[in-house]
Parts: sequence; C-alpha cells; structure tokens
Amino acid sequence: MSYNIGIVGGTGYAGAELLRLLGAHPQASIRVVTSRAQAGTPVAAAYPQLRGIVDLDFSPAEMDVLADCDVVFFATPHAAAMHDVPALLDAGKRVVDLSADFRLRDADEWARWYGQPHACPEYIEQAVYGLPEINRDAIAQANLVACAGCYPTAVILGYLPLLASGLIKTDGLIADAKTGVSGAGKKVSTSFLFSEVADSFKAYGVGGHRHLPEICQTLDAVAGKPVNLTFVPHLVPMIRGLHATLYARGAVGTDLQALYEGYYADESFVDVLPAGSVAETRHVRGGNMCRIAVHRPYGNGDTIVVLSAIDNLVKGAAGQAVQCFNIMTGLDETSGLDRLGTVP
Amino acid sequence: MSYNIGIVGGTGYAGAELLRLLGAHPQASIRVVTSRAQAGTPVAAAYPQLRGIVDLDFSPAEMDVLADCDVVFFATPHAAAMHDVPALLDAGKRVVDLSADFRLRDADEWARWYGQPHACPEYIEQAVYGLPEINRDAIAQANLVACAGCYPTAVILGYLPLLASGLIKTDGLIADAKTGVSGAGKKVSTSFLFSEVADSFKAYGVGGHRHLPEICQTLDAVAGKPVNLTFVPHLVPMIRGLHATLYARGAVGTDLQALYEGYYADESFVDVLPAGSVAETRHVRGGNMCRIAVHRPYGNGDTIVVLSAIDNLVKGAAGQAVQCFNIMTGLDETSGLDRLGTVP
Amino acid sequence: MSYNIGIVGGTGYAGAELLRLLGAHPQASIRVVTSRAQAGTPVAAAYPQLRGIVDLDFSPAEMDVLADCDVVFFATPHAAAMHDVPALLDAGKRVVDLSADFRLRDADEWARWYGQPHACPEYIEQAVYGLPEINRDAIAQANLVACAGCYPTAVILGYLPLLASGLIKTDGLIADAKTGVSGAGKKVSTSFLFSEVADSFKAYGVGGHRHLPEICQTLDAVAGKPVNLTFVPHLVPMIRGLHATLYARGAVGTDLQALYEGYYADESFVDVLPAGSVAETRHVRGGNMCRIAVHRPYGNGDTIVVLSAIDNLVKGAAGQAVQCFNIMTGLDETSGLDRLGTVP
Amino acid sequence: MSYNIGIVGGTGYAGAELLRLLGAHPQASIRVVTSRAQAGTPVAAAYPQLRGIVDLDFSPAEMDVLADCDVVFFATPHAAAMHDVPALLDAGKRVVDLSADFRLRDADEWARWYGQPHACPEYIEQAVYGLPEINRDAIAQANLVACAGCYPTAVILGYLPLLASGLIKTDGLIADAKTGVSGAGKKVSTSFLFSEVADSFKAYGVGGHRHLPEICQTLDAVAGKPVNLTFVPHLVPMIRGLHATLYARGAVGTDLQALYEGYYADESFVDVLPAGSVAETRHVRGGNMCRIAVHRPYGNGDTIVVLSAIDNLVKGAAGQAVQCFNIMTGLDETSGLDRLGTVP
Repeated sequence: MSYNIGIVGGTGYAGAELLRLLGAHPQASIRVVTSRAQAGTPVAAAYPQLRGIVDLDFSPAEMDVLADCDVVFFATPHAAAMHDVPALLDAGKRVVDLSADFRLRDADEWARWYGQPHACPEYIEQAVYGLPEINRDAIAQANLVACAGCYPTAVILGYLPLLASGLIKTDGLIADAKTGVSGAGKKVSTSFLFSEVADSFKAYGVGGHRHLPEICQTLDAVAGKPVNLTFVPHLVPMIRGLHATLYARGAVGTDLQALYEGYYADESFVDVLPAGSVAETRHVRGGNMCRIAVHRPYGNGDTIVVLSAIDNLVKGAAGQAVQCFNIMTGLDETSGLDRLGTVP
Repeated sequence: MSYNIGIVGGTGYAGAELLRLLGAHPQASIRVVTSRAQAGTPVAAAYPQLRGIVDLDFSPAEMDVLADCDVVFFATPHAAAMHDVPALLDAGKRVVDLSADFRLRDADEWARWYGQPHACPEYIEQAVYGLPEINRDAIAQANLVACAGCYPTAVILGYLPLLASGLIKTDGLIADAKTGVSGAGKKVSTSFLFSEVADSFKAYGVGGHRHLPEICQTLDAVAGKPVNLTFVPHLVPMIRGLHATLYARGAVGTDLQALYEGYYADESFVDVLPAGSVAETRHVRGGNMCRIAVHRPYGNGDTIVVLSAIDNLVKGAAGQAVQCFNIMTGLDETSGLDRLGTVP
Repeated sequence: MSYNIGIVGGTGYAGAELLRLLGAHPQASIRVVTSRAQAGTPVAAAYPQLRGIVDLDFSPAEMDVLADCDVVFFATPHAAAMHDVPALLDAGKRVVDLSADFRLRDADEWARWYGQPHACPEYIEQAVYGLPEINRDAIAQANLVACAGCYPTAVILGYLPLLASGLIKTDGLIADAKTGVSGAGKKVSTSFLFSEVADSFKAYGVGGHRHLPEICQTLDAVAGKPVNLTFVPHLVPMIRGLHATLYARGAVGTDLQALYEGYYADESFVDVLPAGSVAETRHVRGGNMCRIAVHRPYGNGDTIVVLSAIDNLVKGAAGQAVQCFNIMTGLDETSGLDRLGTVP
Repeated sequence: MSYNIGIVGGTGYAGAELLRLLGAHPQASIRVVTSRAQAGTPVAAAYPQLRGIVDLDFSPAEMDVLADCDVVFFATPHAAAMHDVPALLDAGKRVVDLSADFRLRDADEWARWYGQPHACPEYIEQAVYGLPEINRDAIAQANLVACAGCYPTAVILGYLPLLASGLIKTDGLIADAKTGVSGAGKKVSTSFLFSEVADSFKAYGVGGHRHLPEICQTLDAVAGKPVNLTFVPHLVPMIRGLHATLYARGAVGTDLQALYEGYYADESFVDVLPAGSVAETRHVRGGNMCRIAVHRPYGNGDTIVVLSAIDNLVKGAAGQAVQCFNIMTGLDETSGLDRLGTVP
C-alpha cells in the first residue's frame, strides 16, 4: 500500500525536510510539490542534495494539481493553508498542516496573535492537534491534522508527566526555550543573516510569542485548569535544534526519573535519558526523537528542572507530520522515521 | 603615573584578554607575564595578534620575578593563586585575582565546591569581592580583590535593583544562563572540541555549579536574607558572550524600567536598554559593558524577566579586573576600558 | 544474506559514522565494536544518538573478540591497524582499513611520512587501494582494502577525467583543499578547541601533508607518469565537509562538461553538477556522494578549475568503506548508502 | 588638529566599522552619518554597541548635510558614490570612497563588470587607488581616494614582493581566496542567511568576479606587463576574515623569507610572519594588519605558496580608508588604528 502525497509550499525548510523524509518513506509516493515562486523548475535545482532522488518539478500552487493525492501536507507560512484546506477537505482529501492555521481552538485568539481574521473558522473544530503523544486516537480518525509547533512540542512533552500526574503547582511555570536559526524558516530578513546571528545569543519575543497560547491551550487541558506559564524564546547560533529548559515546583518525594520513564515507556519518539544526563540538541539532529532529562537541582527543595530537546525541523515540524500521517493511515507509527542525522 | 603590572598565568583566555586591555592601558606597564609551560618563549608567539605590541617573553612561574610589580593579576585556574598570594601580600604587593580562590567567604564551603581544602583560609577575610557595582569603596582600599566570576556578574547585576529594592519575592528565583565556549577556558578536553560543540546546545552542571554559592552569597547579602535561587548554565556554540535570563515575581505596580535606569544611572559599565529591547551578546563583545533589559511578559501578572548580557572574558573576567585595578589605584574607573569589540 | 561485522576503534568520528551506516545496512550485522578506552561501556552511552538503535557494549581491543566476524573494519588512528591486520587476514577475515596504514605501496615512503617503520611491509602488496571509481574490480577480489583518505578522494576524483584523458599538462597542478574540523578526528588538542577554530580560517601542513604522497601515487598511475602537484590543505570552521579547488591547464577546445559527465556516467557516487554550478559541502553532508563542477574561468585561456566536494566522514571515510564492503561482498554497491544528511 | 568627518551610507558593515574606528580616532570628529533608510533615527539604535559612544542621528542622504565636513567617506554599495562625489570634489571636499566606483582606470571596463555606464568617467583620472603600500605618495596628494577592495588588498600585498622583484613567472598565477560572510555586506539575500551558510563551504563567482580586473590592473602595473591570474573566491562560515592562498612559480635560489621581510620592513600594516608559519584570520580580526607567510612546499621545485590574511572590514575596507585618510591629512599613518580585535 502506498499513498499519493502532495506537498504545498515545498521550498521552505519544513518542505525540504518533508521531501527528505517522505522521499524515503516506504509507503509514500510524492506526486506533487507546489511552489508559487519556483513553479516549473526542478526540485533538485533548489535542493541539490536531492539530485537523483527527487525527480519532480515544482508545480504551480493551484489546488487542482493535487487531485490525485491521498494526503496533502501544507508546509506554508501561516495564513496560507486556511485558504486552501476547506476545498481539499470537501474533495475528500486528508490534510496534514504544518503551519499554525488550525492549531488554536479559538478563532478570535488566532486572529489576535496572527493579526488577521481566520479565513475558515468553521473548519477549526474538525482539526485535531497533531501531537501524537497526547492525541493519538483522534489523529487516527482525523481528516485535518494541525501539527504541533516546534516550541509547543518540546515544552508540552517536557511538562506532560508532571502536569498529568497533578503533582506540581500549575502556577509559576517557566519555559526558557532556545532554537536554532532554521526555526525562522527561509525568510529573507536582516535578522537572520549569518553575520547578524553567528557568534551571538539573544532572547526575542519576550513580550509575547505566538507559541504561548498554543502551549497553554494544551497544558491547560492536561492540567484540567489554567496554568500560569512564562515562555521566553531565544535564538542560538546553530542551524537546527531546539532546547527547552523547564522549571516547575512540587512533586516532593516523587521519583521523577521513574515517573518520566513510566509515562513514556510506550512512546517511540520520546526518550527519557538516564538520571543525571543532559539533552544535547545534536543528539536529536535529523531524527524524530524528543530526548528528555529530569533533574532536581542542588539545594532547592521543590524545584524541578526538565531539559527537553528536539530537532525543530523534524519532531518540531516534518517528522511530526510524517508521524501523524502514519497514524492517520494506520501504518506503523515509525515508518519512514528511522533516519538518523549526523553526529558530529 | 604608571603602575608596573605582573600577570601570573598569562596563557589562558583571561590572560590573553588582560594582555589586550593592559597592553593598551595608559597607566599600566606590563613587566612580567608568567607561564609554567611556556617560560622563555615570546608572548607574541603564543598570541600572534600581539606581534609588535607585546614584546615580553613568558617568565617562569616563580614569585620572585614579580618583585618589581606594583600590582599582580592572577589569571590562573582555581586552586593556584591561593598558594602564591600570601607571599605577595606579605611583600606589600596588591593582588587582583581573576580565579575563584578568594571569592567565597566560607573556607569550608570553598572546600566543598572545589574539592580540596583552602590553602590559606586566614587570608580570605582580607579579600574584597571584586564587583565594583556593589563594592566600590571596599575595592578602593583592598590589597586583595577576588574578581567576581562571569555568571555571578551577569546574574547579580541583573537582580540587583530588584533585590535591593525589596520589591520581589526572594523565593523561586530562576537564573537560566548561557555562555560561549571560551567560558571553559583553554582547557584541553573532548567536551570543548569544535566538532562536539558547534551546531549544538545543551545545559550542564544542572545538579550544582560552583558559581551558585558565589551568586547566593552576594544575593543573600543584598536581600538581607537567604534567597532561593535555581541556577542552570548552558553552553552556546559561540566563542564569547554570556547571557542570563532571570525570572522573579513581585514589584507589581512598579515602573521597572525607571527602577533599573535610576539604579544604574551613575554606573559606567551597566547599560539599561530602552524598554522593549533585548540584550544581544554581540553588542557587548570585547567591551566591559553589562547590558540589561527588563520585561513584564504577556499575561503573567507578577512575573518579571530580566535579560543580562556581558562578554564573559571582559566584564566577566579581565575587564572587571582592570576596572577593579583602576578603582584600587584611584585612576579613572574607565581608564583603558574604552575599547570596543567588533560587530559584526 | 547478512555479514557479521566487527569495528575496531569505534569511538572516533569515523567509527561513529560506521555505526550510523552499518547499523542501518540491510545486509550487515554489527557484532563487535572495540575500544581500548571504553571497553565495557554501552556504545549508546558514548553516542546518545544511537540510543535504542545500537545495543552493544564496547569490547576490549583484543583480536579474538572478532572471531565470529566476516569482515572487520578498522577505524583506528594510523599505525594501529598494521599491528593487527596480519593475524586477521591469516585467520581468513576480510579487512576494510579506514586508516592510512596500507595506502602507500612503498613501505619506506610510508615510514618517512608516518615517522616509524611499517610493522608488516610484506602485507602491503595484497592491499587494494579503496577508491571504487578507479579500483572496482580489484576491490571485489581483495581481502584487505586500504580505503582512500578524505583529501585524496576529493582530489583524485576531481582530476581523474582530465588526467585519464591525457588532455592536460601534468605539471603545475594545484590542489587547494579545505576541510571541516571533524577531519582531525576526535583528537584532544588545543588546536581543535571550538574557541581556537570558530570564526577563523587558516592553512596548515603547507610544507608537506601525509595525503600528498597518497594523492600522487594514484595520479601518477592514472597519468602514466609523475605529476607535479602542489597540495595545500586548510581548516574551515565547520564540522563536516571537504572541498577541493583544483587547477590545471590544457584541454583547449574540449567540452569539459561533456568529458566529466561521460566519464562518470555510470558511477553511483559521483555527481557532475550542471555547467556553471558550484559544489557546496552541505549538499553532500551525511551522504556518500562526491559532487563535482568543472569551469573555465574568465579570460584565462587554458586554465581549468574543478570544484570537488565530499563529506569527509562519509565518502572520505566510513561511506567509502561501506561502498568497498558492498563491492567485496558482491552486494549492490549502493546498499546501505541511501541515507541523506540534513539540509539545512 | 581635528578633521570634520562625514560618512555616507553608515548602515552597512563598512559604515559601522568606520564608526568604530573614526569614533575613537584622536584627530577625527564624526559630524554626519547619512542613511537613506534610517534618517532621523539614532545611530546607536542601529548599533547598540555604540550606545554612549556615538550620539548622532542618521542624516538624510543629501549632499548639503556634508557642508561642514573636511573629508567625506563613502561606505555605499557600488554605483552610488559616482553620483555624488563630483559635487563634493567641486565644493573642495576630499573624498575617501570605500566602494568600487573609482577603482578601475578604464570606464568601459567598469561598465562591463558593473553592468551600467559610469556616471562620471571624467573624474576617474583624479582618483588614486587607495592601497598605501603601493601608492602612498599619490594618496597624500589626492582629493579622491578609491580604496582597494578586500580581495585585491590581500592578493596584491601577497604577490607584491615577488612581482616587483621580477623573479617569478607572470603566467599561471593562481589566487585561491576565501572570505567571511560579512564580505557580502548587510545585503538581504537568501544566500547569506545563517542556515544557508553555516557549516558549509563553497566557491562562487568562478566564471568571473569583479575584483579580478581590479587585481590585474595593479599587478600588471607592478609587473610591467600583463599577468595571467586565475582568481577563485570562496565563502567561509565565519563573520570576518579574508585569506588568500597564492601560487606562483620561479625565484629559485632566492631567500623568499628575506625578500618579504625586506620588502615590508618599513610598513606598519604588513607583518611578515616567521618562516614556517601560517596566517590565521582570527589573528588579524578587528585590526588593520595584513599578515603574510611565504612557503616553498615539499618537493615542488619552483612553486611558491603565499598565505595572506586580513580582516575584510578593516584592512579590506574601513581600516584601509582610515589609513588613507591619515596619509591624505599628514597625520601619523597609524593614528586611530591601534585597536586590536578580540582573540579568541
């Protein structure tokens, strides 16, 4: 059994990563890759690493080219998918959206954070939030999966065992998160030039980042009440990798290592590191794994520190999308996701 | 007036930075640079950037070569200065120690964190903690200055206005700190090889880092009571730069921007950035400035986020030492510290 | 059919890369990974990216642990394999040596460049130089393959069509080559610390590099006479990747693009880029491909510039070893080598 | 004596570097910094590292704002200065142009390489090529100095002793050059995004680069006949630094080290490294020095390899401009150029 795949917006980094993963997926056959800007040019001209592997040309970004596809992936910037997804769903396609368009349940909140009204609020309800570790069954049934963002994936998976257990205070949560520069996509902006980013470090979005409501929406649901979370993202001079350092209080007397290992025992893509470890982003590079370490720092009573690392373009984007696709189609959840990145 | 300077341990990164700064200092004359390993070889052979600027050879690491010096800087690893400083003090020299040997007031605590007994606990009392922004008058009188460490400098300066004002809770403080790799010194270890560090990010020392007691010793004194602080350092793939993201709660209703600007109005080396800014480490590269931004993040009531950035080798080491030297000798505090680094 | 594999010296970067590639190879089963320093510890403790994938512990570096292996790979520093290979060959094992021990045909020249006598000069003759593009048939029959070094691979493949055609002068060849830092291996040395290497560029080994005789030995054979080659390697602040810029003169009137495309038409791991292209090392990252571009620069009559890029740890080490293994065992030459690296 | 300085185009990297150097120059007073895009905003808002040091706002890019200036520096992209310089010269200002507009003596050749006719070919003749080591006397008299480009500076200074001595063949010269990314300026282009450039290496402009005619124009003049030079630039994942590896043949029997040391004995900004050294770009970072090493590689008879390193933004741009300014005004040639960069 092989599924015909369409990729909308194939020229960005998440799109390239979908091509890498789906191009080698044993049950997927990429039929169409669209690009408004590069229609007609070979995919391999834009991505020389795919020479000899992907033989398609970019198609124009018109929906009818997707007619033969079973599943359509959107790797577009926000506010694009919401214009095209309804017609595809109506035509019976299943959609995996890597963008933010269908992640928030509340169209008004979406409008506030993304600066424009949502184009199809009536479709939000059928979207399933694409984080398999909390939503596996719903994903299996969904026609529209709104894949979790990169920061939300690392933060939610890091807090999940603590919040689900009800053992920590839901107040005063701190998520100090750091991403590689590819997290900004292939956007052309002075801010992401090599000479502006290399050999430096900074916070950004301290006043409020779009991933905050997405994180809280899920953490609130897990905790069964509103959590108070401070989320500060930072930019690291590296290409890939995302690391969340999470702070919480409580669970005194609990064996946190056992709690985490137990919680994630059956997950293929969450790896609880041995006690005393740290999570290095290079150890998840190119792979779909989220690696987590849990610590009680010296002399601080009830404080808990969780380290959570993913590859922002894999478990934080394209890999998660493929994992959702596998679940939607009933394939082995790990199919096509056994590719390791390179270390060093 | 010019002071004769000796530098003990001139081959590490802090030593090189002392050479850069003191070599251009209008009232300092470097007379001796010692190195156990490189005695007899020209300083400029080890540091080609100093060719034509520093004409000395490294001297053997014997104390009598420092006889003609007025002030001796130690840029040695920990547990070295404590063996040599007493004789120098007894001989009437003034000492600026960049290492950790005399920073902790409690010799037993020093022994616990540094894994060996202190060699001269009776000299600790006369050491003044070298952070001018809290200790300027005492530094002016001191014969032995124990320069503040890199993390402590960024963390303490970041929290100082809040803790001194008594407006925040002293419980639940979080210092999530990130350093460039030069913070580890020129130590030869697999962990700091380019291929192990580049394009990756990780935490380290989560269980307990030697800078924690140093930070707490000062914050406790400022707050007038023990603070509860969680300190998690991280390693960033950049050469220089140190960034602390500090979390606290309280001060509701206070104009934090005004509080910070007022507190540091007379400081030459603390720059409170305009409201809404972030501190980038490249903007302090090569200079002695600590740049600070203070934020109330979106929707989190009483949470405060402070961003504090220094160059770990300048304000976090050699620049701070020169600043202390200027104060000790009654020179203009900024003398020799006007050199900007390069951006980009 | 699956082959039992032993890896001697599994803790370096080439060893790690063998684990990545052979661990996913459909006809290879890694049975033993030796390490003098880490015997008894799990492979996945040294390489967390292999957690859940490689379940072996490192074995002691004794030859009898390799008894069950069909093929033994040596990923040791030079001057190690030559002590152990004879016994393995005598015991009927086939050996793929990634080190330099058996690359030079002349034991005296080996001794000159490597600073010690060769331990088993009588075995050199049976070694086949492991560069499939020139030696495929001999590799198929060999019991001992001495894999080509990283620089030699890029330089030889770049010059091959020109020299084999006899169209260029064999005098005045210039190979200006650049490698990522992993080319130095996991050697602990000040020279390869992040803070010494990042944000800088330099040449090294200008007076003479061990890869020069290896390159010339092959180019002489291809040209049918001694070539005069100047080889200058440089260190680039990147983890992986090797780029050779090759200069030659001659072949006036020849369609160089057609020459190269024709020469390599049947090769799976040499990709001649379209006319006008440049080869970026990131486009070969993690893969076994050598990408080559050939140019006639502006206004320089008979000068030819060839750009040749490989991943130094794959086509320049472990990937080439696997390619040789595939040829030795009659497997599809590309088996286990379809894994793409990550871009960006 | 202090000169009033105007900087046209102050927002790029060369402009920022002029601000760093001229802001600390004892005989220069920056009066105006123009920027089309940022007129009205404080310079220190664009360059936080200059907070408290440069208090000017950017002025509109109109020529009358330069009325009070003695010397005007242009740090604009090519094809801008040529429109404004004539009026300034006519008004009696002296001009130091960092751009390419007046470097080529032949307006037609300029037009070919820069894709448009030259706007004021009649002014080209009065421009003096701003490379002090070959043109010091003419620079002293000039009203218009066209500062040498970054690649030309490193390549010309590297070849100068050989070509001036007439000891080498002028045919078959190879300049394999490598630059940091800041060489591309602050241009917003996908090609210079961090994620496109980091951890990779490539050549560019192989077919022909604008610095080729500039280099040849000078080398031809030095040699007294046309040289045949192949020039291939490459992009290195570092911010600053430019390294040229130069190849030539001849001078057999000459003591090259003595030739170079003698040739540059009186130059303040050319440092011939000891025999056997290599030039690392980090050792010239932030400074105006060109460091050169000269080698005869192993076993190659008459081949010479010269390594030449500069900071592309200092000796390759702003530092050279300040050096020219010092010469034009009769100041000490090193005035304001004693600032070292940071190592590491």
